[in-house]
Amino acid sequence: MNSKYKVLKFKSNKFEDIEDLVSIEEPLEISLRFKEQDKWINQNLSITMRTPGNDEDLVRGFLFNEQIIQNIKDIDSIKSYGDKVGQYNIQNKILASLNNSQNVNISKIKKDFLTNSSCGVCGKSSLDALEIIKKNKTNPSEPKITKEIIIQSPNILQENQSEFSKTGGIHASGLFSSNGELINLKEDVGRHNALDKLIGNTLINDQLDPGAQFITCSGRLNFELVQKVLMTDIGIMIGVGAPTSLAIDLANKFDMTLVGFVKRDSFNVYTNNKKVIVG
Amino acid sequence: MNSKYKVLKFKSNKFEDIEDLVSIEEPLEISLRFKEQDKWINQNLSITMRTPGNDEDLVRGFLFNEQIIQNIKDIDSIKSYGDKVGQYNIQNKILASLNNSQNVNISKIKKDFLTNSSCGVCGKSSLDALEIIKKNKTNPSEPKITKEIIIQSPNILQENQSEFSKTGGIHASGLFSSNGELINLKEDVGRHNALDKLIGNTLINDQLDPGAQFITCSGRLNFELVQKVLMTDIGIMIGVGAPTSLAIDLANKFDMTLVGFVKRDSFNVYTNNKKVIVG
Repeated sequence: MNSKYKVLKFKSNKFEDIEDLVSIEEPLEISLRFKEQDKWINQNLSITMRTPGNDEDLVRGFLFNEQIIQNIKDIDSIKSYGDKVGQYNIQNKILASLNNSQNVNISKIKKDFLTNSSCGVCGKSSLDALEIIKKNKTNPSEPKITKEIIIQSPNILQENQSEFSKTGGIHASGLFSSNGELINLKEDVGRHNALDKLIGNTLINDQLDPGAQFITCSGRLNFELVQKVLMTDIGIMIGVGAPTSLAIDLANKFDMTLVGFVKRDSFNVYTNNKKVIVG
Repeated sequence: MNSKYKVLKFKSNKFEDIEDLVSIEEPLEISLRFKEQDKWINQNLSITMRTPGNDEDLVRGFLFNEQIIQNIKDIDSIKSYGDKVGQYNIQNKILASLNNSQNVNISKIKKDFLTNSSCGVCGKSSLDALEIIKKNKTNPSEPKITKEIIIQSPNILQENQSEFSKTGGIHASGLFSSNGELINLKEDVGRHNALDKLIGNTLINDQLDPGAQFITCSGRLNFELVQKVLMTDIGIMIGVGAPTSLAIDLANKFDMTLVGFVKRDSFNVYTNNKKVIVG
């Protein structure tokens, strides 16, 4: 599932307004209905950021792979429910009913899903998260940067990664000054961890200066990454790969400039367009 | 942080035993100590799969980005604790003490982290997960496949993705027969979702035949992806990118053959070596 977005494309040394297809990212709230001691229980299990489509298969695979069910036949029915929401007019809630309580790992559900923890995205709905940011944060600050700095920043990031050249399997996030100087860089196998490490280290070293900085991340740009950068008030975020729909929507809402698909001589500006790019 | 692993490398039409550096992936259990109504509370917050190093910064960034604290100075101290575990002899638990309860978003902690949900990895320790798999599962089945099929499968995957050619920003997982035929394929912005969708759809359509199949995934291979494939009893997993240390360790433990870094004329076999590759 994808959607058309307006993109300002820089290529062959000129800007062009185009339309580009972007993969849709939307939250899916997975709930479970099962019987315990003759009582039916409805239990929220997880919220995952997914591309809509095959939601029933996603729930089947999740329940099986997480060892909540032993057999696919233990699922009696799977139904999407709730209002059709958002710009894509889809249901973002789904309920699986289990018919065979003997085979259901209830102690596992309780242990892993009821009393335990959650990561940045799961464990809350994206809409709640958006509302919280809206209440607390002003629009991000925006320095001016040149096209050359945009194109160079992923290379500078990779050249300065101590681990990538060794393993080829680690993500990085870098804090840059608006004149293209690398200020701080952190690496991790998880993209969200690299960004948390970067922001945590930037804060403790008092390096944050949103009006004169931007952040560049390896890999693709999703909701979670944009949300983290928004917390710093930094207003320009650059990613090597493609953004999701929700990454663009979130950046758009808070006037963040989101740049993706940075290559040797081209990049895409997804939000806030030409305002911050000079030269 | 990285570690040397023995790798069977196929390149220039021959196999070679080499050593390769792999990025380390280990679970980090993040806990919080804060005061509520004059009582000190210790609360597990999250388990994240991270590369060890800069753990304190990871916690700082996580608490700030998740809006649990408003100011980095609200953290009084951050300390790693617990036994040094695993082959890398590191502490995988960390506690942040908060000194300013007025600024701590306790209702948010309770809402997002105590009563809510979790995804496949967070919300449980990787060691618990390993133990559960060990109890329930036999060793995965293993067909024989040729070098040509290994090299072709990522191309077949990409050619058959309906979304990738449009957006360039979506992951895929594919189920293949051991003779290289694509049986099923699913896409999602999240790698774990694409694999859940694939396995869920495979199960409901009764397509699973572990002794004669393998799974190929776009992107990198981490603990979570290997864990999901192990549940199907499929014994060969191929990834386009690099594996993490924990992905290799888990595959090794259950005699799964893990292949990564598949390129036009080369690939790396990380576990179970030459046994399943013929031709």
